Amino acid sequence: MSTVQVDTPGGSYPIHIAAGRLDSLAQSIPADATAIALVTNPTVYGHYGERATKALAQTGKRVLRIELPDGEAHKDWPTLNLVFDALLQNRLDRKAVIVALGGGVVGDMGGFAAACYMRGIRFVQVPTTLLAQVDSSVGGKTGINHPLGKNMIGAFYQPISVEIDTDVLATLPAREIAAGLAEVIKYGLIIDAEFFAWCEQHVEALRALDPQAITYAIQRSCELKAYVVSQDERESGLRAILNFGHTFGHAIEAGLGYGQWLHGEAVGCGMVQAAELSALTLGLPPASVARVRALTAAIGCPIQPPDLGTPRWIELMQVDKKTEGGQLRFVLLPEIGQARFEAAPLEALRRVLDQAAVAQV
Amino acid sequence: MSTVQVDTPGGSYPIHIAAGRLDSLAQSIPADATAIALVTNPTVYGHYGERATKALAQTGKRVLRIELPDGEAHKDWPTLNLVFDALLQNRLDRKAVIVALGGGVVGDMGGFAAACYMRGIRFVQVPTTLLAQVDSSVGGKTGINHPLGKNMIGAFYQPISVEIDTDVLATLPAREIAAGLAEVIKYGLIIDAEFFAWCEQHVEALRALDPQAITYAIQRSCELKAYVVSQDERESGLRAILNFGHTFGHAIEAGLGYGQWLHGEAVGCGMVQAAELSALTLGLPPASVARVRALTAAIGCPIQPPDLGTPRWIELMQVDKKTEGGQLRFVLLPEIGQARFEAAPLEALRRVLDQAAVAQV
Ligand SMILES: NC(=O)c1ccc[n+]([C@@H]2O[C@H](COP(=O)([O-])OP(=O)(O)OC[C@H]3O[C@@H](n4cnc5c(N)ncnc54)[C@H](O)[C@@H]3O)[C@@H](O)[C@H]2O)c1
Ligand SMILES: NC(=O)c1ccc[n+]([C@@H]2O[C@H](COP(=O)([O-])OP(=O)(O)OC[C@H]3O[C@@H](n4cnc5c(N)ncnc54)[C@H](O)[C@@H]3O)[C@@H](O)[C@H]2O)c1
Ligand SMILES: [Zn+2]
Ligand SMILES: [Zn+2]
Repeated sequence: MSTVQVDTPGGSYPIHIAAGRLDSLAQSIPADATAIALVTNPTVYGHYGERATKALAQTGKRVLRIELPDGEAHKDWPTLNLVFDALLQNRLDRKAVIVALGGGVVGDMGGFAAACYMRGIRFVQVPTTLLAQVDSSVGGKTGINHPLGKNMIGAFYQPISVEIDTDVLATLPAREIAAGLAEVIKYGLIIDAEFFAWCEQHVEALRALDPQAITYAIQRSCELKAYVVSQDERESGLRAILNFGHTFGHAIEAGLGYGQWLHGEAVGCGMVQAAELSALTLGLPPASVARVRALTAAIGCPIQPPDLGTPRWIELMQVDKKTEGGQLRFVLLPEIGQARFEAAPLEALRRVLDQAAVAQV
Repeated sequence: MSTVQVDTPGGSYPIHIAAGRLDSLAQSIPADATAIALVTNPTVYGHYGERATKALAQTGKRVLRIELPDGEAHKDWPTLNLVFDALLQNRLDRKAVIVALGGGVVGDMGGFAAACYMRGIRFVQVPTTLLAQVDSSVGGKTGINHPLGKNMIGAFYQPISVEIDTDVLATLPAREIAAGLAEVIKYGLIIDAEFFAWCEQHVEALRALDPQAITYAIQRSCELKAYVVSQDERESGLRAILNFGHTFGHAIEAGLGYGQWLHGEAVGCGMVQAAELSALTLGLPPASVARVRALTAAIGCPIQPPDLGTPRWIELMQVDKKTEGGQLRFVLLPEIGQARFEAAPLEALRRVLDQAAVAQV
């Protein structure tokens, strides 16, 4: 088993990564827990619910199952309220523990429910998608969507541990794997050029979920994210670099309508665009842009942005929460393995966006 | 102006107390704030909205007015969502500041909205009821109600400052003053016998809102609450003593239906019951119980508990979140000025509750 330690002002906790970790979930439950609420969805429960329940039951504690409807469309208040309803109807108290078993949607909602229930109870992340394992379960961002914006309502709230079972990736659709790998290579791009090169060399093994390769990729991703988050839990500075590719990516998601492209797919494509913008503004070498494009394609993500039209692109990027006081800022790369968060000249941005439209024709 | 400093792991901030403080609100807004959202209700806005807006406008920043319907019945998710709607429709960013102008309802909701909006923006408490000035605005508890329980959804989230204008109490109904004074004498009972005696001596001045007396009472209450909260921000130990009288009080509020008695009235009566229970379990002298009863009556709170019937009382107290693992625990006084949080024998509790029913007949 690999362990990555996360240290933030809001809490310190381990990430355990191992094949078969699901069967050891009892180890993550504190002795004084009065009950366990397993927050999940029917898809994930169908695959892994019984195993997780059996493992948690080894604690001798009551395990309450709370199934939320599957999908980003349900990452909203009414669905979150189902968790509160169940917790209150079953009289779970402040010493109960939430276990969030699922992808990023379940993790974000389970974590936010834990943050708010009785002003905060403990929770364990058990991420079951690659994206959740390398990204959303680490760092304490939790929340739900609002009709006027994604992830607009939430909390910084750290779990007491993250339990990653690499075996569960076997049932994940290939597109979800590609989407998760986009976040993996993102870490290399913003902070670890060596890891990016390692990903280039192991891309086939990663796509095939080779146990050794995927375990290392998850571990290294968690280490890098944990490092960034420990420097800046509340995203006042450094943490913003984790949003590399995301301002473009969010515009794609919103512009096409959520659910058309997976988040990771949009981020993959967005990273290519951000690399192009980096070339224009910070002099990222064309060969590096080509490497970003090639690896993004190799992991199975689209690299051709949708033709939303430049004005709409800009409008969509302006509602993204990374605009402060109205100015458009991006995470940009002076070279692979280094990132800066700064305002980009509108002219350069237009060139990247216009290019996209041209390429499509 | 008096200043009380609050230091918690979640943040350090000043409480400013002064007649006319409303006109100096601009001082509480950080220079880098991008906008100000004034969260209030029509009643409070009618009295003080223009003055507050004018004061805030001195910053030169945009002031967005968000009026929530008045009353505890609206301390719920749909109403909280009105805040998110307004913040998003007006594109307020992460550097916006919420100013909560009103009683405990507005303060709890404005604070919780600040805690959740984009995972946390800054907020200023401007409490306008006595209860809010001496209690709810200090300590960082924020939240809303759920149909199955009061304050069940919320966050510990500290304001950047609390601005108390003692003048605004002039428009508060007498019942609200009595309710606020219940929380004032609570601090004396649990932690400062001398302050309790001071309240006995100044009860008429307090009820008449004598400026010197009320300012001192607010300041001392804030100091005492700040002391407790600084020891235990997240209510894992000491902070529980602030709930003296509240387990009974919450049962009264829930048993009669919320809104029949004011929270502070129910707490006042509940403190008398808790004193009686303290006499039976910890040997609080009968003379001390008599002092609690006399001062509670003198501030204008009811001292005769409603006859809910003992089984219903117990049932209501069991859903209170101070039950952990099912056992009923109370804040009890071995003597005036000292408090302990401990389980009470059911038999003693029954005697207190049966007594109440008898007295009523
Ligand atoms: N908190 C953060 O820091 C953070 C970071 C990135 C993304 N996110 C959020 O994460 C969400 C996206 O997460 P996601 O990509 O995991 O999507 P998801 O949670 O919707 O999961 C994708 C699909 O895979 C299914 N699934 C999950 N595990 C499976 C398994 N092992 N086998 C088969 N199917 C499985 C899910 O039921 C779902 O249908 C978004 O809401 C995004 O905002 C949060
Ligand atoms: N956060 C905490 O630590 C904490 C502590 C105690 C109570 N509370 C919460 O506080 C709430 C009760 O607060 P409250 O007693 O202030 O009730 P409230 O906020 O409902 O105010 C009482 C009434 O007085 C009106 N009002 C407010 N200021 C006024 C003024 N200056 N002049 C005239 N009218 C005015 C209000 O509009 C309302 O109608 C409850 O929801 C309770 O749960 C929170
Ligand atoms: Zn992402
Ligand atoms: Zn109270």
